[in-house]
Amino acid sequence: MTLPVLGLPEISRIATPELVFTAVRDALIAHAEGRTSVPPPMVLDFPAHAGDCHVKAGYVEGSPYFVVKIASTFGSVNNGLMLVVDATSGTPAAVLADEGKLTAWRTAAAGALITDAMTPVGVDEVAVLGTGEQALLQVRWLRKLRPLRRVKVWGRRPEAVSRLCAAFAKDGLDARPDGLDGAVCVIATTAAREPLPGEAFRSAIQITGIGTDMPGKGELPVEVFAGAVIATDDHEQCLDHGDFGNAVRAGVVADDADLAVGAVLRDGVERAHRSVADLTGIGAVDAAVAAAVVARGVASGVVKWGPLPDQ
Amino acid sequence: MTLPVLGLPEISRIATPELVFTAVRDALIAHAEGRTSVPPPMVLDFPAHAGDCHVKAGYVEGSPYFVVKIASTFGSVNNGLMLVVDATSGTPAAVLADEGKLTAWRTAAAGALITDAMTPVGVDEVAVLGTGEQALLQVRWLRKLRPLRRVKVWGRRPEAVSRLCAAFAKDGLDARPDGLDGAVCVIATTAAREPLPGEAFRSAIQITGIGTDMPGKGELPVEVFAGAVIATDDHEQCLDHGDFGNAVRAGVVADDADLAVGAVLRDGVERAHRSVADLTGIGAVDAAVAAAVVARGVASGVVKWGPLPDQ
Repeated sequence: MTLPVLGLPEISRIATPELVFTAVRDALIAHAEGRTSVPPPMVLDFPAHAGDCHVKAGYVEGSPYFVVKIASTFGSVNNGLMLVVDATSGTPAAVLADEGKLTAWRTAAAGALITDAMTPVGVDEVAVLGTGEQALLQVRWLRKLRPLRRVKVWGRRPEAVSRLCAAFAKDGLDARPDGLDGAVCVIATTAAREPLPGEAFRSAIQITGIGTDMPGKGELPVEVFAGAVIATDDHEQCLDHGDFGNAVRAGVVADDADLAVGAVLRDGVERAHRSVADLTGIGAVDAAVAAAVVARGVASGVVKWGPLPDQ
Repeated sequence: MTLPVLGLPEISRIATPELVFTAVRDALIAHAEGRTSVPPPMVLDFPAHAGDCHVKAGYVEGSPYFVVKIASTFGSVNNGLMLVVDATSGTPAAVLADEGKLTAWRTAAAGALITDAMTPVGVDEVAVLGTGEQALLQVRWLRKLRPLRRVKVWGRRPEAVSRLCAAFAKDGLDARPDGLDGAVCVIATTAAREPLPGEAFRSAIQITGIGTDMPGKGELPVEVFAGAVIATDDHEQCLDHGDFGNAVRAGVVADDADLAVGAVLRDGVERAHRSVADLTGIGAVDAAVAAAVVARGVASGVVKWGPLPDQ
């Protein structure tokens, strides 16, 4: 048996925004409709090296492939890959040595899709909390769905805010280190464990939170959920460790107050004074993107089965 | 990032019996001493294709690598591979496309080690139940540890018994389709769901069971455990779904009547009228063998990091 390994350059050529958006949207809808399999993840800890490794698996019913994703963090270094397996035969089909980029892109695409779906047409200004990779990507991917004119950046470290503003300016945006004051559409991308004060969100009619992805995190003030239309990418997961769960435990909203992100993408949603999307990340979405990359790679001849080097 | 993929020919060259025996023995002892990590496995089901996929992970403390193993069964076809990851950095080190052989070899090595350790020196005749790959391998690997003269074969299908006897005869053994009558050392390798009658085991002073690896299976009659010295490869797992658990539930032995296989390999054991070893398979042993293959492959230059074919 041989096994094609695709590195980041090949994956980047195949995984166009159109491919990623389509795979993510379809997977979020399938997840909302109960057509996905996502077993509980496995965790291995390496305390001697400040490391941990999460193993996740996912499958969208009817997909030609299922996917096992290995993601590790040692100190501040992330690593990982996706193993794509034929779902009709169990034969390994390819390894995607994606350096974590497919996860970054699917997170950006999921955030952009729900932000666009829940934000009134015509809004062309967004504010981002956080100055990491997702702060940049959420805006870049949202621009693939709607025109943006201005972006406001909030972060704890002024030099990181300046750097991100410079990157946005280079993209042709009016980038301002203004914080959240007056922001109508807010995208939160931090690893915060303590939420920002609620005043910072008072003019927001759309809030998308993508940073709260594990127990102990929480970036959105629970008050923003009061009376809002709420969408979660996975009900149980957001209840367990998303910002939505923090709001439920604080008594701000009922534990069944949420719609599925996939249902909002499929059906649209009636607007209230505010809408909030809570994204914690779903293994089935990883699986869908990786499966789409391999399917297109096979179709285009990039993913080839050949002899091993020494044979 | 590039990722070396080793196929079966390369793996076969590296994984000498000495390497496998050493890795398996050390891992069984480490497991007995609580120096291993084995998170609960993940299972994905594909009912439309009569398929399932098990994802297991394992780590022996102090090893340079941890391992994620993917094993699938679709209809009657097994498939799989092992992903070996650097345990100090989280960097994927290699994929072993071993076609299930490393699992077969570690099962054979574990069975041979404990059979040899619990069977009096000088016994040079064994009986095997079952006619599959493990029936052949258990005997072949035991011969690497002690001289054997005669092997008796029991199976439900006479043609399979004849075929296995012919293979043993070719190996230079006195092979007999005699069943278990008078057998002193019995190795059970079947996927049986109903145990054989206890009379067949009446002369056995050592019984090694390797076939009962999931709930619903059970090849050893529960009576054979009565008053025996018992060794299990994993106490909880054997209690949950090994032959030992069947004997405990039948009231034949107490649920703490077992020693750890690793402790027996480390310290030896006092003989009783009979000893029984129940092996259900441990992820940490898979991990140890895969890690040893990659470590030796790196040391000998077989595992090389090079550019991707298209770069």
